[in-house]
Amino acid sequence: MKGAFYEGNKKFSVQEIKPQSPGPGEVRLEVAYCGICGTDYHVYLGHMDKRVKAPQVIGHEMSGSVVEVGENVEVFKVGDKVVVRPLVPCLKCPACQSGHSHICYNLNFMGIETSGAFQSSWTVPSYTLHHLPGDIDMRQAAMIEPVAVASHDVRLGQVTNKDYVVVLGAGPIGMLVALLAKARGARVLISEINKFRINLAREVGMNVVNPLEIDLLKYVEEQTGTAGADVVFEVTGLAAGAEMMTKLARTRGRIVVVGVFAEPTKVDLLRILMRELQLRGVRVYEPEDYDTAISLVAAKELPIERLISEIRSLEQIQTTFEEIEKGANFMKVLLKCSD
Amino acid sequence: MKGAFYEGNKKFSVQEIKPQSPGPGEVRLEVAYCGICGTDYHVYLGHMDKRVKAPQVIGHEMSGSVVEVGENVEVFKVGDKVVVRPLVPCLKCPACQSGHSHICYNLNFMGIETSGAFQSSWTVPSYTLHHLPGDIDMRQAAMIEPVAVASHDVRLGQVTNKDYVVVLGAGPIGMLVALLAKARGARVLISEINKFRINLAREVGMNVVNPLEIDLLKYVEEQTGTAGADVVFEVTGLAAGAEMMTKLARTRGRIVVVGVFAEPTKVDLLRILMRELQLRGVRVYEPEDYDTAISLVAAKELPIERLISEIRSLEQIQTTFEEIEKGANFMKVLLKCSD
Repeated sequence: MKGAFYEGNKKFSVQEIKPQSPGPGEVRLEVAYCGICGTDYHVYLGHMDKRVKAPQVIGHEMSGSVVEVGENVEVFKVGDKVVVRPLVPCLKCPACQSGHSHICYNLNFMGIETSGAFQSSWTVPSYTLHHLPGDIDMRQAAMIEPVAVASHDVRLGQVTNKDYVVVLGAGPIGMLVALLAKARGARVLISEINKFRINLAREVGMNVVNPLEIDLLKYVEEQTGTAGADVVFEVTGLAAGAEMMTKLARTRGRIVVVGVFAEPTKVDLLRILMRELQLRGVRVYEPEDYDTAISLVAAKELPIERLISEIRSLEQIQTTFEEIEKGANFMKVLLKCSD
Repeated sequence: MKGAFYEGNKKFSVQEIKPQSPGPGEVRLEVAYCGICGTDYHVYLGHMDKRVKAPQVIGHEMSGSVVEVGENVEVFKVGDKVVVRPLVPCLKCPACQSGHSHICYNLNFMGIETSGAFQSSWTVPSYTLHHLPGDIDMRQAAMIEPVAVASHDVRLGQVTNKDYVVVLGAGPIGMLVALLAKARGARVLISEINKFRINLAREVGMNVVNPLEIDLLKYVEEQTGTAGADVVFEVTGLAAGAEMMTKLARTRGRIVVVGVFAEPTKVDLLRILMRELQLRGVRVYEPEDYDTAISLVAAKELPIERLISEIRSLEQIQTTFEEIEKGANFMKVLLKCSD
């Protein structure tokens, strides 16, 4: 068995590991595939060295199956196909006490604060698991975690089939938000400047514009009879996105902040007031978002296969992150974690 | 009959006026009292010279009675006590078409884009009127417009008796927001730095802190068992308020932007994401907010009398604005518009 350890300083080492026997309430998994998330890339860049204690296995977008079951685990048995919802809440803070443990004040994120899924054997609390249908494609199942993020975003954005939706930024999460909004029956427009992403979004049937080439605001006004968008998803984390989001939304429109803004960013609060806009931040997922994501992936209702750019071996982790750093055109890369 | 005309360049002139006969669907009012709003002060300072065509009568926080009724007006008759909801929507734009005519894309605000209430005779569309109970105090009734603003704010802020509410800034609107939130049963804290306002807020029974003297964030954490505020009303329009609002709100807490921010302002969007905060802008009022405000003022459930700092004659308009500019300690000044 093997694991890929983040060593700090943009380095991973792939090493033999010993399986860790599950304690009470725990389950040991064989990880099938684990996707590389933007967060993993931030770890690679050293941005999260305060949270990740190197050497440490990272990774959290996984699919796998149960190979060993600890005491007091009733619901899971050896052979079950599963995904992990990688959140370990404190259950004591005000967020947990009010039912929002996914945004726990002291949240431990598996694969950041604790050992992650870029390894063939992963021992986890059974409460983090969701069952998968037996016939699911395990490569596609590794996309359930990001699909759950997008499910959470469109759910809290209250997207309906009456809405005109604009998604700013079509990385993996933006692309999935757009696909899920479309699946809810909304008219969806993606704004993206990267040509690879633009082409891929068009291939999977999305309407995409490049705001460097056309006047996005004018386009949305034309498409909506001057009203503006019902819902705007800000998924760039960039100042230009923060500036655009308030311009695009109609009166009482909803803005959903998905992108991660490292610094306080200028926002047109007067526009928010004048149009009575509603803005909300959204983060990770709740159990029901996993249920939705599993259903969508199992039913093959999304072009998940087209979003998987490459499948690499775990041993290729170092070169893969280096390719990402050099600007490789990937949507999602999966690492195959067991043979 | 007389009217106070804004002449530009911080000057008002009080002149004899001719009553304007009401056309079809219009009503002529005798204005009893009209309060000076922060917006009127911005007009005085010349900030709104693009919207106000001098010489023009401004003012909109009024009480009055019907003295003449035009054709096709069924609901109002001579002698009725009324207040004006001073909004003239276009009824054609996307906001109006979706039922939000109070935030019409082409809204005309009476007393800004059109003639206002600092005059003894005011002719207005009858659809802007709300009936008052016959025994209402007409001075207090001139406070209905700002009370309606606050009613709108606490309604859209969904304040309940389970909430801990922080109001940043206790000018007339912040003070009324705090009073109305308290009337809904919430625990309310005001943050204010002006000593006159602090003292007045305490006199009317509010809990107030000066954030220059104590650590507001720590205080709110102590008061809420580290959770943070359920609802934060930003009523300062200042960068310091925009910075504080995201710090104070609990997970999934609501931030209501009432303050007018002249420029895009830095907002901690990461905090909004991490805590899944909900922020919304609110502006003016809808008819039901007037109904609420009229009931509250008529029932004398609010310390309205204490919020009226002075009652002046219309002829004193110039000196009153000059006193405000010099920093006079007023909460609300009313001008008596008819004898």
